[in-house]
Amino acid sequence: MLIAIPLFDRFTALDAVGPFQVLVGLPDARTIFVSEQPGDVTDESRALTLRAEAGYADVPRPDIIVVPGGPGQARQMDGSALRDWLILAGAGLLDGRQATTNWLAMDELARLGAKPRHQRYVFDGKYATAAGVSAGIDMALALAGRIGGDELSQRLQLGIEYDPQPPHNAGSPTTAPPAIVAGLRARSRFAR
Amino acid sequence: MLIAIPLFDRFTALDAVGPFQVLVGLPDARTIFVSEQPGDVTDESRALTLRAEAGYADVPRPDIIVVPGGPGQARQMDGSALRDWLILAGAGLLDGRQATTNWLAMDELARLGAKPRHQRYVFDGKYATAAGVSAGIDMALALAGRIGGDELSQRLQLGIEYDPQPPHNAGSPTTAPPAIVAGLRARSRFAR
Repeated sequence: MLIAIPLFDRFTALDAVGPFQVLVGLPDARTIFVSEQPGDVTDESRALTLRAEAGYADVPRPDIIVVPGGPGQARQMDGSALRDWLILAGAGLLDGRQATTNWLAMDELARLGAKPRHQRYVFDGKYATAAGVSAGIDMALALAGRIGGDELSQRLQLGIEYDPQPPHNAGSPTTAPPAIVAGLRARSRFAR
Repeated sequence: MLIAIPLFDRFTALDAVGPFQVLVGLPDARTIFVSEQPGDVTDESRALTLRAEAGYADVPRPDIIVVPGGPGQARQMDGSALRDWLILAGAGLLDGRQATTNWLAMDELARLGAKPRHQRYVFDGKYATAAGVSAGIDMALALAGRIGGDELSQRLQLGIEYDPQPPHNAGSPTTAPPAIVAGLRARSRFAR
């Protein structure tokens, strides 16, 4: 099984590396970072650079594609090599599909024709989507379970010792203090 | 504030990138990946390569150092540039300190003179340690709270939408099915 993770300028690092760390543990799978061209790709903070080992053209038919988000994603939406590659790889994309995304981008998701769901991750047909940033870890564990069963998912979870104990219960707009939710919303690139 | 994350051959990617994604959001902080020499460093899976922007000698006095784990860590324990750098940066290391680590390495931690604690993360003086892999995210959020207060920690948590919902409750040896715990223990590099 070949798992490809596309990288683009200004991606969100944990969006890519969280699912990577889960899926790289799948038996008989190979995980590869790809981009328009092989080479270095820098994240949204400009402080982290990951290497894409191959270009899209080198990996025409991966079994799974894990697409990270990030501020650079907007530039990938129209006529980009990434979009072309996703379509080549068989995507009708999310039109009419149930999907989720970063809580700040839910309206954007609806505008793009998907049916937004306020869930940690959503499976609809062959598409899996995750909420913001760290949610890709949960999505990848669920995906591993669909591929290889619950025991495999549990083994991978214990392997990354994923027993989350955040110091606060503030990871969702429904649990964070309202002032913090409002503050992030005001500074969001999706703010109107 | 300067935050340095040392990389070495065969580090664990999420150990480095989880805390990175939290700490890069601190106001007035700069986060930098470092290594013995500037350049590419490859993780334990050989599928992920991160770039170290500077050598240890270029960053003599960071305010915070986040050291990842991984199979390559053993080679860093004796006479390595990383160990020298940590000592230069002021470490008496963990001798006599309360600390935690990956559940598979608890005995190793005791052997090294620390007082092992079965916790998600431990603060003892200026040292913070985290349990395996994904625990660095929780540790980094707690660290952010100590640096800038609970509101900052909550803002960073909502920023990475860290509202964990793993599909199973198998992230700790106390919650995972015993057969899965035994299986990982048998294959551990810390197994005797």
